[in-house]
Amino acid sequence: VTLSGVSGAMIDKGNHRHFMQKEIFEQPVVVAQTLQAYLKPLDGKVALPIPEFDLAEVKRVTIVACGTSYYAGLVAKYWFEKFARVPVDIDVASEFRYREPVLEPGGLALFISQSGETADTLAALRHCRAEGQKIAVVVNVPTSSMAREADLLLPTNAGPEIGVASTKAFTCQLAVLAAFAANLARAKGKMTAEEERGIVQHLAEAPAALNAALAHDEEIEKMAPLVAVARDVLYLGRGPDYPMALEGALKLKEISYIHAEGYAAGEMKHGPIALIDDSVPVIVIAPSGPLFEKTVSNMQEVAARGGRIVLISDAVGIAKAGDGAVATIEMPDCHPLIQPLVYAVPVQLLAYHVAVAKGTDVDQPRNLAKSVTVE
Amino acid sequence: VTLSGVSGAMIDKGNHRHFMQKEIFEQPVVVAQTLQAYLKPLDGKVALPIPEFDLAEVKRVTIVACGTSYYAGLVAKYWFEKFARVPVDIDVASEFRYREPVLEPGGLALFISQSGETADTLAALRHCRAEGQKIAVVVNVPTSSMAREADLLLPTNAGPEIGVASTKAFTCQLAVLAAFAANLARAKGKMTAEEERGIVQHLAEAPAALNAALAHDEEIEKMAPLVAVARDVLYLGRGPDYPMALEGALKLKEISYIHAEGYAAGEMKHGPIALIDDSVPVIVIAPSGPLFEKTVSNMQEVAARGGRIVLISDAVGIAKAGDGAVATIEMPDCHPLIQPLVYAVPVQLLAYHVAVAKGTDVDQPRNLAKSVTVE
Repeated sequence: VTLSGVSGAMIDKGNHRHFMQKEIFEQPVVVAQTLQAYLKPLDGKVALPIPEFDLAEVKRVTIVACGTSYYAGLVAKYWFEKFARVPVDIDVASEFRYREPVLEPGGLALFISQSGETADTLAALRHCRAEGQKIAVVVNVPTSSMAREADLLLPTNAGPEIGVASTKAFTCQLAVLAAFAANLARAKGKMTAEEERGIVQHLAEAPAALNAALAHDEEIEKMAPLVAVARDVLYLGRGPDYPMALEGALKLKEISYIHAEGYAAGEMKHGPIALIDDSVPVIVIAPSGPLFEKTVSNMQEVAARGGRIVLISDAVGIAKAGDGAVATIEMPDCHPLIQPLVYAVPVQLLAYHVAVAKGTDVDQPRNLAKSVTVE
Repeated sequence: VTLSGVSGAMIDKGNHRHFMQKEIFEQPVVVAQTLQAYLKPLDGKVALPIPEFDLAEVKRVTIVACGTSYYAGLVAKYWFEKFARVPVDIDVASEFRYREPVLEPGGLALFISQSGETADTLAALRHCRAEGQKIAVVVNVPTSSMAREADLLLPTNAGPEIGVASTKAFTCQLAVLAAFAANLARAKGKMTAEEERGIVQHLAEAPAALNAALAHDEEIEKMAPLVAVARDVLYLGRGPDYPMALEGALKLKEISYIHAEGYAAGEMKHGPIALIDDSVPVIVIAPSGPLFEKTVSNMQEVAARGGRIVLISDAVGIAKAGDGAVATIEMPDCHPLIQPLVYAVPVQLLAYHVAVAKGTDVDQPRNLAKSVTVE
């Protein structure tokens, strides 16, 4: 596996106990350096690294990825549809490449991968190229196969990621996808210059918001024992917080070996709520906003059945619904376009501290490889 | 909740210990009676209950449902795309209705629900109607709200389903969706008269294949203790067997309270394989065919990490890969269009016998209601 283009000297743990911890704490810096290629703050404009690439003709976006990168893509689907009104198909690469997908002319196929070598994603990319789709890639290794085969290369600048469980690569992917959503919205005439100026400002504030989220590290460390004793954990969210629930559950699975599962909050009543008793912590990701009341209602159903709730929200949300939780984690107020980046931090820290509490091998979890270059 | 239009006298358990068991065993009969409205076996033609409804102009299908009905929709996505080459979007109703979906003109929106009253699905239906989509519904209760609001009513004729965990309603939904896929393929000029004759024959053979699957009941009962002791179970599949993995996991969750999770087999390496040790049974759903070798390769990775595999396949598949499994369940050979119906049976029976072995309340699992008429 080729690491991204940063000198070997950077690859040590510094003052951190694990690479994963170091990489979680690097996020404000690497998100800022990633966004440099996508923002012109003085002009109040978003930009693409390849400015001449024309997005106005894109009729549909097909997103293909695996694992954590797939969850970044799920968040992007919400953004592309909401801000640019461009319909988005999304699938995991191992399913996409074998299901004979119907690809329409004028489509952009977008692939997301930290390494740029993920076997199934690369095969899907080549299939889409053969079918006449334009190819965009969000990738952390600029010399990778996917980077070389892209029409539109959208690099993340996360630096080398050593921990097997992806953290900073994920938030950098989200940063790029948010900027791309804004570019798409502008190209489609769905964003005024004033809105664009606002978006640029919000994206530029992401590193500060990530720092504010990281300030809760000790508090999250203290609540880790609550989760570390659990056999099963559920993560719930709605809208863009649903993929964050999936990502939170995946992180916990990967490094603590606790069977965590992410669910769309509204689907709980269609089956998984049968699992709930007082031994099951339920992590609810719910910033205040239009979906908040609905998620809180699902949270109350869980609480009524004995589930112990950890609520991750902002000050307004915690004031409204924190009473029903055994623990709360307060995130800073932030724009919907940077919320997923910010809310990634507490789920990463929770997984990290639970794994440390359980004594598992955080940076090299059993059975996993950093990049999956076989099918 | 209004039950479907069958007399009250039919609503007893007969010789069965639970309604769920009775409903599992009713499947050959209710699938046959459901298909009557969709097949003209003497002419070798598939048909719609509303023959004048024109599918030729359908450019895209948007499928919306919850829980088990959503998994029927996931199978249908494969069929509609593969056989009719019509692109399909699909989402759970609680997400769809709040995410401002982009709906294109000429679209057909298809809703799937046993009761026809599921709150989120009904709200999504009304949203799509307001956005100018044609409305099709697959529903078991012909007097329900969804049935009344459909342009194209596609009834299942499963009779009243009493067990909270859906079984016969699911296979009847699949039967209707398979017939609908064939209608769509014909309308789109993607199916010759000869192919149509073949499809009709295969669908007409579904009840016999379901009977052959049910003949494995005692054998599955004997392997239930293997799963009943587990804390966690994974279900794996590819292609249309991926939604069957999700459904198998949901059934086990619902009635045995074991934390089961379904995964696309190719995604295992991107995280969940970290969960695998010798205490985790892994149910692999893999009929022989083009995806078989890929799934077996994922199965071998699981076995190499100590996972105990139950392989559900056909004679050819079991001859090839059964050695790696601690148990196998042999399904009859069948056409890809009826495979999901047939493979539903062993996952239902496995969940049923595990729940009985654990002594849970099979027909009325904790925390669950038969139809979810609140959000």
